Amino acid sequence: MLVVGELINSSRKAIARAIAERDKEYIQDLARKQVEAGAHIIDVNCGTSIGEEDKVMEWLVHIVQEVVDVPLCIDSPSAEALAAGLAAHKGQAMINSITAEKQRWEEVLPLVQKYKAKVIALCMDDGGMPESVADRLRVAGRLVPGLVEAGIPEDDIYLDPLIKPLGVNSQYGVEALESVAALKEKYPKVHTICGLSNVSYGLPERRLLNRAFMVMCLTRGMDAFILDPLDMPLMGLLRAATALAGQDEYCLEYIAAARAGKIKA
Amino acid sequence: MLVVGELINSSRKAIARAIAERDKEYIQDLARKQVEAGAHIIDVNCGTSIGEEDKVMEWLVHIVQEVVDVPLCIDSPSAEALAAGLAAHKGQAMINSITAEKQRWEEVLPLVQKYKAKVIALCMDDGGMPESVADRLRVAGRLVPGLVEAGIPEDDIYLDPLIKPLGVNSQYGVEALESVAALKEKYPKVHTICGLSNVSYGLPERRLLNRAFMVMCLTRGMDAFILDPLDMPLMGLLRAATALAGQDEYCLEYIAAARAGKIKA
Repeated sequence: MLVVGELINSSRKAIARAIAERDKEYIQDLARKQVEAGAHIIDVNCGTSIGEEDKVMEWLVHIVQEVVDVPLCIDSPSAEALAAGLAAHKGQAMINSITAEKQRWEEVLPLVQKYKAKVIALCMDDGGMPESVADRLRVAGRLVPGLVEAGIPEDDIYLDPLIKPLGVNSQYGVEALESVAALKEKYPKVHTICGLSNVSYGLPERRLLNRAFMVMCLTRGMDAFILDPLDMPLMGLLRAATALAGQDEYCLEYIAAARAGKIKA
Repeated sequence: MLVVGELINSSRKAIARAIAERDKEYIQDLARKQVEAGAHIIDVNCGTSIGEEDKVMEWLVHIVQEVVDVPLCIDSPSAEALAAGLAAHKGQAMINSITAEKQRWEEVLPLVQKYKAKVIALCMDDGGMPESVADRLRVAGRLVPGLVEAGIPEDDIYLDPLIKPLGVNSQYGVEALESVAALKEKYPKVHTICGLSNVSYGLPERRLLNRAFMVMCLTRGMDAFILDPLDMPLMGLLRAATALAGQDEYCLEYIAAARAGKIKA
């Protein structure tokens, strides 16, 4: 199971402030805490730094890699910011994200190739957000072969089915779960990933829905999540579900996490 | 989703004491609390009252039905105790449990028929505990047709795949989940049920494993659980997962539970 820590994102007020004030310690502390809590990759996003996003991204990559050894996930709608972050990054980065939209594909694919990065591929094209399981399979049917033809190993591809809010349609959870299973069946060597928070948008006690949804996605074969690793019940459930899914031999990691006080019932 | 509240069970010391002292108020209070927390059926088990189990069961059924309107699940290895509980019960009870073991089948089937009860059918026979998904399907292939031939509606049958401890074998979780999916596929009109606590036996932070396992079973089609409804995170996850599984139109029940303070993230 791969955990991408989502907290260094300037859509969060505390991060926007820390970036504006170049409060290196605050951001570094949050990077360290996420890794200690179990994140394998740290997402960095500074989308609110309009006009200077590429410079801020370079700075973020630099200061975070000063204090943690894990790779970063360079996260931006701007290809320039992605390029700046990737150029500054040591080791194999992850890119968040490519899509099947013509412009995005043409801008981001060369970066994935140049930096031999892992890449999150969103199941959307110029037609917009996917409307069904079939829609996602159709778009993935362009993304996966396109990436593979461009020399990207299947093991570096993370398909994101794109999760829509359950509050908008009571069947969006089922649609997402069936998409995960269908993508996994069609592309067994490619990974699937998603962010958790969209599913609960507009509903009360959102973290509860996010936690349940994570376990449900994992049960249907999802093997990577962009999440808040400081949500202790969430990480506890992740470790428990990983063991229950037969992916933790002799439950050694689960037991070690419990002994270290990292998970609590 | 059907929730059977498990707390009135004399294997718990507080219940053994309450039964020994005929502390009616303690037991009634626990029945009320479980129903308030969301239990649809209250399990009653007094297996430790050796030599007087049938009388104690009759008493339990009587005092619990004095204070709650939901049906009870009469739970005993003794056919005499089942018979005594069923005779005392008002409305349609649930029986815990029948098996494909010759003696158990012959003792319990007439009770299911006589009292038109719902029945939990454990996937085991005289060969003992099931060893694989195929084993469970084979035993269910005797239980379901046998019960249906005896006049029991499929909707009253709850197949229990029998969950074994993950600590004994790291694949027991996967085996259980695949059994749930296979039973659901083969018998779509029959329910599946399980108790949660066996899976975590011998491992630390057991409730965390129980909670994750509940969500995983639900994701694979299980629609009934024997559990502790006073475990608030568990019930919160159950309501969240039910909504995410598309079984709570407009998330109305989830939202109502959140507003009533019954679930908290």
